Amino acid sequence: MAEDLYQKGIDKIQKLTNSPDDDPTGFMDIGEAFKDIAPDLQNYVVEFAFGGIYSRPGLSDKQKVLTTITALVAQGKPQIGMHVKTGLSVGLTPEEIVGCVMHLIPYVGFPSVLGALSVTKEVFAEEGVTVDTTKVK
Amino acid sequence: MAEDLYQKGIDKIQKLTNSPDDDPTGFMDIGEAFKDIAPDLQNYVVEFAFGGIYSRPGLSDKQKVLTTITALVAQGKPQIGMHVKTGLSVGLTPEEIVGCVMHLIPYVGFPSVLGALSVTKEVFAEEGVTVDTTKVK
Amino acid sequence: MAEDLYQKGIDKIQKLTNSPDDDPTGFMDIGEAFKDIAPDLQNYVVEFAFGGIYSRPGLSDKQKVLTTITALVAQGKPQIGMHVKTGLSVGLTPEEIVGCVMHLIPYVGFPSVLGALSVTKEVFAEEGVTVDTTKVK
Amino acid sequence: MAEDLYQKGIDKIQKLTNSPDDDPTGFMDIGEAFKDIAPDLQNYVVEFAFGGIYSRPGLSDKQKVLTTITALVAQGKPQIGMHVKTGLSVGLTPEEIVGCVMHLIPYVGFPSVLGALSVTKEVFAEEGVTVDTTKVK
Amino acid sequence: MAEDLYQKGIDKIQKLTNSPDDDPTGFMDIGEAFKDIAPDLQNYVVEFAFGGIYSRPGLSDKQKVLTTITALVAQGKPQIGMHVKTGLSVGLTPEEIVGCVMHLIPYVGFPSVLGALSVTKEVFAEEGVTVDTTKVK
Amino acid sequence: MAEDLYQKGIDKIQKLTNSPDDDPTGFMDIGEAFKDIAPDLQNYVVEFAFGGIYSRPGLSDKQKVLTTITALVAQGKPQIGMHVKTGLSVGLTPEEIVGCVMHLIPYVGFPSVLGALSVTKEVFAEEGVTVDTTKVK
Repeated sequence: MAEDLYQKGIDKIQKLTNSPDDDPTGFMDIGEAFKDIAPDLQNYVVEFAFGGIYSRPGLSDKQKVLTTITALVAQGKPQIGMHVKTGLSVGLTPEEIVGCVMHLIPYVGFPSVLGALSVTKEVFAEEGVTVDTTKVK
Repeated sequence: MAEDLYQKGIDKIQKLTNSPDDDPTGFMDIGEAFKDIAPDLQNYVVEFAFGGIYSRPGLSDKQKVLTTITALVAQGKPQIGMHVKTGLSVGLTPEEIVGCVMHLIPYVGFPSVLGALSVTKEVFAEEGVTVDTTKVK
Repeated sequence: MAEDLYQKGIDKIQKLTNSPDDDPTGFMDIGEAFKDIAPDLQNYVVEFAFGGIYSRPGLSDKQKVLTTITALVAQGKPQIGMHVKTGLSVGLTPEEIVGCVMHLIPYVGFPSVLGALSVTKEVFAEEGVTVDTTKVK
Repeated sequence: MAEDLYQKGIDKIQKLTNSPDDDPTGFMDIGEAFKDIAPDLQNYVVEFAFGGIYSRPGLSDKQKVLTTITALVAQGKPQIGMHVKTGLSVGLTPEEIVGCVMHLIPYVGFPSVLGALSVTKEVFAEEGVTVDTTKVK
Repeated sequence: MAEDLYQKGIDKIQKLTNSPDDDPTGFMDIGEAFKDIAPDLQNYVVEFAFGGIYSRPGLSDKQKVLTTITALVAQGKPQIGMHVKTGLSVGLTPEEIVGCVMHLIPYVGFPSVLGALSVTKEVFAEEGVTVDTTKVK
Repeated sequence: MAEDLYQKGIDKIQKLTNSPDDDPTGFMDIGEAFKDIAPDLQNYVVEFAFGGIYSRPGLSDKQKVLTTITALVAQGKPQIGMHVKTGLSVGLTPEEIVGCVMHLIPYVGFPSVLGALSVTKEVFAEEGVTVDTTKVK
């Protein structure tokens, strides 16, 4: 049963990150780096976060990643980059991702948004993604 | 030109809140209460926030409100209620709104989520909205 | 298995709150108020937070509640009161609880500490608890 | 020596709050409410915060209170009201106080600013203070 | 009109940063780096933040920069350095800038202040600025 | 008297960090780096934080450091590493330190905890400390 939940989490991560079967968690940080100090962290990430919360009905995957990115921008967390990558993977357009970060200016202020745009720009460059800016202004 | 931007902001608020022509800003707080101490606040809210940011291409109105709610939950701000109401107004389902708040547990922790759910529950009751919980668990 | 985890969480809450068998979760907020909008919240609180994290080895129950109170003070969250009550229930002395809040002044500043002391004072009054202040200064 | 520092702090508070000799700390919260749970809190507030930090050279009293108000707005702390009152007491004009809160919009976002303006408006009403808004816009 | 506001913002930045006519925004980050992903960001920074908020009456430029620095310290944002530089440019003394950061200890705690002092020290070194410490203690 | 408080603070730091007599503050950051811009900072750190708050009765040294680490994780501050080191020095086991950070997942979310575990892992490696993970899961 718990094993099922772990597998459910792994399957969800694989779908979100569009990863191959021989590396189903791909670029997603599931806490593997901490096996020697907190071996249960990975289970909590996979079972609770992905097998549970990310598998909830209510929101689409695109909405879930948009919500995640927003929460990280609002808190100034460095994991934004990984989730921008996930956003592209689930089909958010670059315009949606930038639109999300820009939308936060009135709610969190410019400094947090400038920081998040830097990370977003880097990920877009790495992924070879460009933004259609013809519709802006 | 600036007048145009003000009108553009008012039009956007009217659309977001589904308000009548004789009260186009409806339940949205545009800083009217502060006319005697900061009369320009209302202009910044209407022109910058709604005429500018909320009128940006990139995200749909539903996505914009979802992003707004998320930012307020992440910061524990009391304006969540007003934006939950806007969410319903632009067509977010109750399941999407609750789904958004619940999705934040792994990113901001339970205390902020519990606080946000209290406000959400109140707004849903006021608006006569119910959540279809048959698909959850 | 998942049922076992739920029961494990309930047992942990009962022990932490020193609650009777016919009301094992006692004064602990496990999200029951949100059954009509997010029925799965309670499971996450009970299974993940109490069946999982609170049942981890490493820290004693007293240390766990001290850590919880600290996190809530640092974030200015209103749930402090409930966890001060849990602190008394697991055997933290009033001096330890006040000592924890006072210790945070250099790390989070006076405003957050003053807010937390107000809540602490209220809970102590409700619980009929007094602080031995002869050793302070 | 430590007694001197306590007196220095009390004198500073009296000057900042323009309080009479028989109630030198006036409306300033120096933690007196917590004597039965943390009797040393008052000493830390008076000696460290006012005898020390507030007595530092470098900034004028007006600048110190402006800085304090800003820090509280940025963190969403409820003590803003007391420090707005202190601001008026040290000679900040209502325009300076409102100007400070409004200046924070690009740095902390509208929600925190709206909350702070509500408290400011209340204090101004209590103190019979009005804002000259002819120069704004 | 909007063009006027843009020019007003540029003029304000030039004055604040004391920049030459052929590089009027000087060292100020106005979001130029994000032209390929969010070309409208620069307009919001220039028009709203500088043409609007920074051009408000109420506070002097020195007070505005002091308020900005405080907000960034309270939130732990990396843009502190740029605004310390602006502070020196508008005539804040090094003693005022350090006085502002030190004044925040009781409100935000030592960790944020230590971080801000590191950045301040670096900028002072780059700008060849020294602090008169004879009056401190 | 003030000199006594300074010495009391130094003695406390020496005990907490287990430092030799000829370097009593050891690896603890007491603000020495800022002598040329804020020479009084060191006094505040030593006298107020260590001579005062850290010397309060109520909590054991182990509890004080646990509380400190928690506050820094909750705020995402970079000083976590130094205090993890202090934790080991006062006798917190690696399991207690990791247990404290892991306990915060439900209260502050995964991103802050992942950041704190990275720093913790580095300090453990530097100090040659290993975690007994046989009891976890």
